[in-house]
Amino acid sequence: MKTLTAHGAKDLRIEDHAMPEPGAGDVLIRMERGGICGSDLHYYNHGGFGTVRLKEPMILGHEVAGRIEALGAGVEGLETGQLVAVSPSRPCGQCGFCQSGAQNHCLDMRFYGSAMPFPHIQGAFREYLVADASQCVSAEGLGAGEAALAEPLSVVLHAARQAGTLAGKRVLVTGCGPIGLLAVLVARAYGAVEIVATDLAPFTLEMARKLGADRVVNMAETPDGLEEFSAGKGRFDAMFECSGVAAALAGAVPALRPGAVIVQLGLGGDMTLPVQAMTAKELTLKGSFRFHHEFPLAIEMMRADRIDARALITETVPLAEAVRGFDLASDRSRALKVQIAF
Amino acid sequence: MKTLTAHGAKDLRIEDHAMPEPGAGDVLIRMERGGICGSDLHYYNHGGFGTVRLKEPMILGHEVAGRIEALGAGVEGLETGQLVAVSPSRPCGQCGFCQSGAQNHCLDMRFYGSAMPFPHIQGAFREYLVADASQCVSAEGLGAGEAALAEPLSVVLHAARQAGTLAGKRVLVTGCGPIGLLAVLVARAYGAVEIVATDLAPFTLEMARKLGADRVVNMAETPDGLEEFSAGKGRFDAMFECSGVAAALAGAVPALRPGAVIVQLGLGGDMTLPVQAMTAKELTLKGSFRFHHEFPLAIEMMRADRIDARALITETVPLAEAVRGFDLASDRSRALKVQIAF
Amino acid sequence: MKTLTAHGAKDLRIEDHAMPEPGAGDVLIRMERGGICGSDLHYYNHGGFGTVRLKEPMILGHEVAGRIEALGAGVEGLETGQLVAVSPSRPCGQCGFCQSGAQNHCLDMRFYGSAMPFPHIQGAFREYLVADASQCVSAEGLGAGEAALAEPLSVVLHAARQAGTLAGKRVLVTGCGPIGLLAVLVARAYGAVEIVATDLAPFTLEMARKLGADRVVNMAETPDGLEEFSAGKGRFDAMFECSGVAAALAGAVPALRPGAVIVQLGLGGDMTLPVQAMTAKELTLKGSFRFHHEFPLAIEMMRADRIDARALITETVPLAEAVRGFDLASDRSRALKVQIAF
Amino acid sequence: MKTLTAHGAKDLRIEDHAMPEPGAGDVLIRMERGGICGSDLHYYNHGGFGTVRLKEPMILGHEVAGRIEALGAGVEGLETGQLVAVSPSRPCGQCGFCQSGAQNHCLDMRFYGSAMPFPHIQGAFREYLVADASQCVSAEGLGAGEAALAEPLSVVLHAARQAGTLAGKRVLVTGCGPIGLLAVLVARAYGAVEIVATDLAPFTLEMARKLGADRVVNMAETPDGLEEFSAGKGRFDAMFECSGVAAALAGAVPALRPGAVIVQLGLGGDMTLPVQAMTAKELTLKGSFRFHHEFPLAIEMMRADRIDARALITETVPLAEAVRGFDLASDRSRALKVQIAF
Repeated sequence: MKTLTAHGAKDLRIEDHAMPEPGAGDVLIRMERGGICGSDLHYYNHGGFGTVRLKEPMILGHEVAGRIEALGAGVEGLETGQLVAVSPSRPCGQCGFCQSGAQNHCLDMRFYGSAMPFPHIQGAFREYLVADASQCVSAEGLGAGEAALAEPLSVVLHAARQAGTLAGKRVLVTGCGPIGLLAVLVARAYGAVEIVATDLAPFTLEMARKLGADRVVNMAETPDGLEEFSAGKGRFDAMFECSGVAAALAGAVPALRPGAVIVQLGLGGDMTLPVQAMTAKELTLKGSFRFHHEFPLAIEMMRADRIDARALITETVPLAEAVRGFDLASDRSRALKVQIAF
Repeated sequence: MKTLTAHGAKDLRIEDHAMPEPGAGDVLIRMERGGICGSDLHYYNHGGFGTVRLKEPMILGHEVAGRIEALGAGVEGLETGQLVAVSPSRPCGQCGFCQSGAQNHCLDMRFYGSAMPFPHIQGAFREYLVADASQCVSAEGLGAGEAALAEPLSVVLHAARQAGTLAGKRVLVTGCGPIGLLAVLVARAYGAVEIVATDLAPFTLEMARKLGADRVVNMAETPDGLEEFSAGKGRFDAMFECSGVAAALAGAVPALRPGAVIVQLGLGGDMTLPVQAMTAKELTLKGSFRFHHEFPLAIEMMRADRIDARALITETVPLAEAVRGFDLASDRSRALKVQIAF
Repeated sequence: MKTLTAHGAKDLRIEDHAMPEPGAGDVLIRMERGGICGSDLHYYNHGGFGTVRLKEPMILGHEVAGRIEALGAGVEGLETGQLVAVSPSRPCGQCGFCQSGAQNHCLDMRFYGSAMPFPHIQGAFREYLVADASQCVSAEGLGAGEAALAEPLSVVLHAARQAGTLAGKRVLVTGCGPIGLLAVLVARAYGAVEIVATDLAPFTLEMARKLGADRVVNMAETPDGLEEFSAGKGRFDAMFECSGVAAALAGAVPALRPGAVIVQLGLGGDMTLPVQAMTAKELTLKGSFRFHHEFPLAIEMMRADRIDARALITETVPLAEAVRGFDLASDRSRALKVQIAF
Repeated sequence: MKTLTAHGAKDLRIEDHAMPEPGAGDVLIRMERGGICGSDLHYYNHGGFGTVRLKEPMILGHEVAGRIEALGAGVEGLETGQLVAVSPSRPCGQCGFCQSGAQNHCLDMRFYGSAMPFPHIQGAFREYLVADASQCVSAEGLGAGEAALAEPLSVVLHAARQAGTLAGKRVLVTGCGPIGLLAVLVARAYGAVEIVATDLAPFTLEMARKLGADRVVNMAETPDGLEEFSAGKGRFDAMFECSGVAAALAGAVPALRPGAVIVQLGLGGDMTLPVQAMTAKELTLKGSFRFHHEFPLAIEMMRADRIDARALITETVPLAEAVRGFDLASDRSRALKVQIAF
């Protein structure tokens, strides 16, 4: 079977691997769609990010869906031919974090397509995948591409939990890549009464408006930034920082109400922040990292027509054109989510 | 000007009162619509409820909207001719509860159309009303009938806050009168992933489904009640008890997940409850009483197309036919919200 | 080895059982102390409570501490001769509740000395016990009797979590048996600024005052009950209901502030409650059921001198006098916690 | 009467002012003690801090207690001769923040001895003060010096609310000036099971241990910093950052558990923070700014023997020696709180 393996920056290869076989409790899945994520792009373009670097070849990919080809012994509740979304989150289940419901902080996490431990955890951009039955969630009723959006949607559903309730709140989203746009969708689905989105690209801002933002602000064209929202100590109750840029966070502080919550989703390394101003407003800055319990919820939110994220898929490329797909996905001026068809 | 005044059970009179004049900070409003609420019906049908009894004639009504006729001195941000919803909640602003943001527990509350203190607080079913400017919220863009729904919607938005977040939760609504139906709408707007509603009347259940309930259960026709939701220690994370009937609450306990929240909205007097079973599941039973900060939010949720409650209005009757309106509103098999046009 | 086995109401026998052997991951413990709990007393006096009834002989006991006699293969972090408190909570670790950190709601819980499933889960009143290493927490520095208080203390620490924070709050404790007295201790340790305790027995109220209650009220001698605390809509922010009597809960409602939390600890069966009054005050009634994560915390709170519960131990009787111990523990006018020495 | 007025950096003068007279609702207080706070020291040593600068002479001081000399018309609940602590927090009571219980964010706050608005808000280091009755809290039973500690204690009680519950938590305090030491006291009073404090000065660390820290770490003498607490993704659940130094915050990140809360109390201007590492651990960074409702609680916590902060008072100097007092208070190697006797 074919896999899509990163050997280093700009060195992405379609390779042959042995066909995997499902053991007891496992499921063999014929992959249909895989979405290219920001971390995949970092491995492809730069060989990694921050201190996370490729040290050996790694199959990329963790946003995937496919059809069940075969069931290992003892698997119940799934059936051959079924479309499933596959969660890339595989915690140990035993450690203190897992037993407290915080599986995303598992001491022995094996997350698909991640170079963080060594040997790396191989990813899911491949024709066939063996997964634990517990990773598979029925996506019947959805298309395979939509099902493969369950992973980034889970990331944002988890981030929304970090924000507390969004119901009736005014929400600011900074950065309108796929994660920021999903934040717009989730804020809308979760009852935000006002949603304002910012970015530098007209392409993504137009999409933000289409997906439910009440207002969009192109920061490249707005000299005063968010000043119009700063009257009376600020307007927004919650902010999803999806750009990873310190200036986006710092610039939003005057527009946030005292007591507002900033959920940091972008991976921004070190940042210089206006802590004194943030303290005087008693802002909360809270990181959000991956997800776990949100994966089946993401599928259900889409199946129950609460969230329709399909507009995020800019293009689906065949595996043979994966490199073109990665290049397209790297260009935020014309692409949002690019998926690969296996 | 005319008022609609209750003198006792089944004694509702259209009376002439002197025209009020707005003082400094006041607004004179020509009333357009007034919705008949459950407590209005109790005064009309029974002369009160529980220990709350009519002791003198009282103008009914607290769900109202109208157009500004004149502004008192010093009023800013409102203008003549503007459609406004009028909040019936008039707390003192000074007591410890008000200064903690819990105005609904104000030690000196004057809530329109309430017999709870004596002399009673006169209501808003009248051709002209003088209100504090702070009670008036612009409802431009809405119809007057929709604007008059802001009050019951505020009740339910407040109840939703009592439930914590509904985002991604499974919600049960027991009792599909106007409050229960608004609970369906709010649960949907606030991101509940599954909503099940119960009642005894096909008329209200059909409306529940139309407004967003994923499933409805007619308890009169379902011998096993909610048993199908009881597997694995139960299914629902939150419940809005809108029937005021102990059996509805007790019967739902097996269908609630451990840790679930029951928000009690119905006024049920004393109730015999299965406390041991509720304790073993660590359920939370939490009352919800009126609202305050939610009133402008209710208007904004409707103006921003987050909630459309218009289907609740069964009929609008002219003031001269108010008694017919009250009788219609008393019949849950064919009426939900009945409004009076002044 | 000897065990203390209930065969039915008033039929408690000291029996010989085969000596257990520790398997891999197990610990063999020579029991030192076991505290008699309210449920033990129910089995002894009435053969059960509510729908929970003895259907076969059952070794009682779940509040125990002992010294490690031998370690099974692969056990780390414990050593022979060490004093350990043993948690009676043995969840499956795999179900959705366990994987969400809610082990007390485990779908396959095996809790020592509980007749709830059948066959019953045998208890820990015995000379030797084999337990999972994960159930054992080092209690070095404590006496064995104090260590055996970790279990009821865990119950109350869990209840305190249900109440939200107690810091700076005014707390009412109704019922001053061992659980109520531990609630006084925990409220004090967790920063309550005022603690009032009620009961009918001078003996327990005196102890409540000694353990940190600022005021005690003997409800048998106070015709007006808690009326003095009812001014201005009530005084208490949180209440631990430890009596299991509906009148205690209902009678406290006027003394609770709007928004207050009632944590129900007593097992009270069905109760008739003033739901309308509770709703108007937006009270929260929340059950608390067992514990899990709190067990090691209970030990650490005692070892770090945050809580000293030793005064609760009224008497320690040898195994041979267990029946006398059970009779003594049944008399709340002169006994609080009675422990058995093995 | 005499006042202590800052005219600029190192220009502190004892001046004569006209005797104030209490109007209706006011109280005339003969001041007894006033504590020198960090912001007083900034005005004295540097003429201000950050963008907050002295632009006209300002009476310093906001940690004060005194005896009531006379009552204005209509004041109830207070009496002549009574010792009162005086809250420096004087919000407008009318704005949206006040009416939501967030008086510390009042749009028209007048906080004693603050150069933030212009004209400056004059402070309370003076022989006689006229205050609103609502600012005065009876401190009978306390000494005047202890009563004057109510203000900094309120700051820390407010910060503790920002942290959520501390009950059973492991708490890190960085920076052992008066605020950090009060954080140790409050963490202890609120049930933290483990408290570790860090600083660079042996003098303050010794005091931290005396007030309840289980461990102290002198960061000047510990090359590995907090590394010993970093095993298994970290140890502390909550952190009070009281140093205002970015390195203290950044250096603590490895020692914090995933999901931990950092409450920022120090005024640190811009800070460069390891946001990526904080995000991966889903840490919360939350500012705490002043207080309001906590002031009467602070007094009551001291009167009810829950907190004894008297050891913080290093020396009390007469007004005539105020400059010596300010110099002493500026030397953290030998002084904590210095108070002035009027």
